[in-house]
Amino acid sequence: MKALEDKILKEGKVFPGNILKVGSFLNHQLDVAFLMEVGAEISRLYKDSRIDKILTIETSGIAIAFAAACHMNLPVVFAKKNNSYNLSNDVYCKRVESFTHKNTNNVIVSKEFLHKGERVLIIDDFLAVGNALVGLLDICREAEVEVVGCAIAIEKAFQGGGDKIRSSGIRVESLAIIEEMTDNTLIFRKQ
Amino acid sequence: MKALEDKILKEGKVFPGNILKVGSFLNHQLDVAFLMEVGAEISRLYKDSRIDKILTIETSGIAIAFAAACHMNLPVVFAKKNNSYNLSNDVYCKRVESFTHKNTNNVIVSKEFLHKGERVLIIDDFLAVGNALVGLLDICREAEVEVVGCAIAIEKAFQGGGDKIRSSGIRVESLAIIEEMTDNTLIFRKQ
Repeated sequence: MKALEDKILKEGKVFPGNILKVGSFLNHQLDVAFLMEVGAEISRLYKDSRIDKILTIETSGIAIAFAAACHMNLPVVFAKKNNSYNLSNDVYCKRVESFTHKNTNNVIVSKEFLHKGERVLIIDDFLAVGNALVGLLDICREAEVEVVGCAIAIEKAFQGGGDKIRSSGIRVESLAIIEEMTDNTLIFRKQ
Repeated sequence: MKALEDKILKEGKVFPGNILKVGSFLNHQLDVAFLMEVGAEISRLYKDSRIDKILTIETSGIAIAFAAACHMNLPVVFAKKNNSYNLSNDVYCKRVESFTHKNTNNVIVSKEFLHKGERVLIIDDFLAVGNALVGLLDICREAEVEVVGCAIAIEKAFQGGGDKIRSSGIRVESLAIIEEMTDNTLIFRKQ
């Protein structure tokens, strides 16, 4: 998505440790009109798929998932991250390590909101090493829902998660794929 | 908002400690079409106000703020909650106690995204004792932005926060105001 690549080039900031901050439109401030365009693009990519529900993960996945859901007329479920959650039998839970925040969280979805046989589109803001996405995929497997595919705003391809998940046979559509990233250069994969 | 009261009566679940769970449409699963109606109602209530930006707080404020922002054509800033945030001079930060989760968080907004003189509408999902809202109002005061008012989906009036903030002269519009809540009864304030 050319408009997203341009936005990243204009507003993104690279920090040590392969961190790309896009707080001006996605992770702290939300450029709602622009994110609605991102949602429209996700809707276009998956227009031929039958989908019952969008699954995302708090916090920064919510806005994009909401935008896509507006265009696709679907409900969203957002997985919760929690360290101290009083776990019960009523939830699916996976331990997920965060590359960005250098910590480990429980990723939790209530069993109430994922039903066997449902067709689910997973949406997230970033895909780097892929831990969060793998956690969501594990939850989907346990819930016996069918993953139609994944839609990601920004993939950092040099961290390998996206291509690893693709090679397992899952459709992963990333709207901007960064092949190389340094303090002053971003190179996107041609799509 | 009658449709919201009906939705709470139909789908809300009351738990010990004055907890009302609306996970089926607001706090875990998002009924996106319905939340867009909630956003339209917020837009209607503030249609005569000049507003530059919506301020909300992660996690559950984001979806409603996004919905309202779609109708009002505004950007959103969501405050972050964090215990271990490496605080710098670049952020506004207030300590806020959570009634629901029985813990204390830093509520943080980057100085980059609130500018002196901006006119801000604060949106959140719940208003109970009002700690989160007071924290956001404190941040707005420190940032020297002008708070046009607050829009809340569900106010638990019996916990007092809403009326206390109103009595300080701030406009607080809550779409559903619960006066009394027991395991099997919810009584709404007439509006």
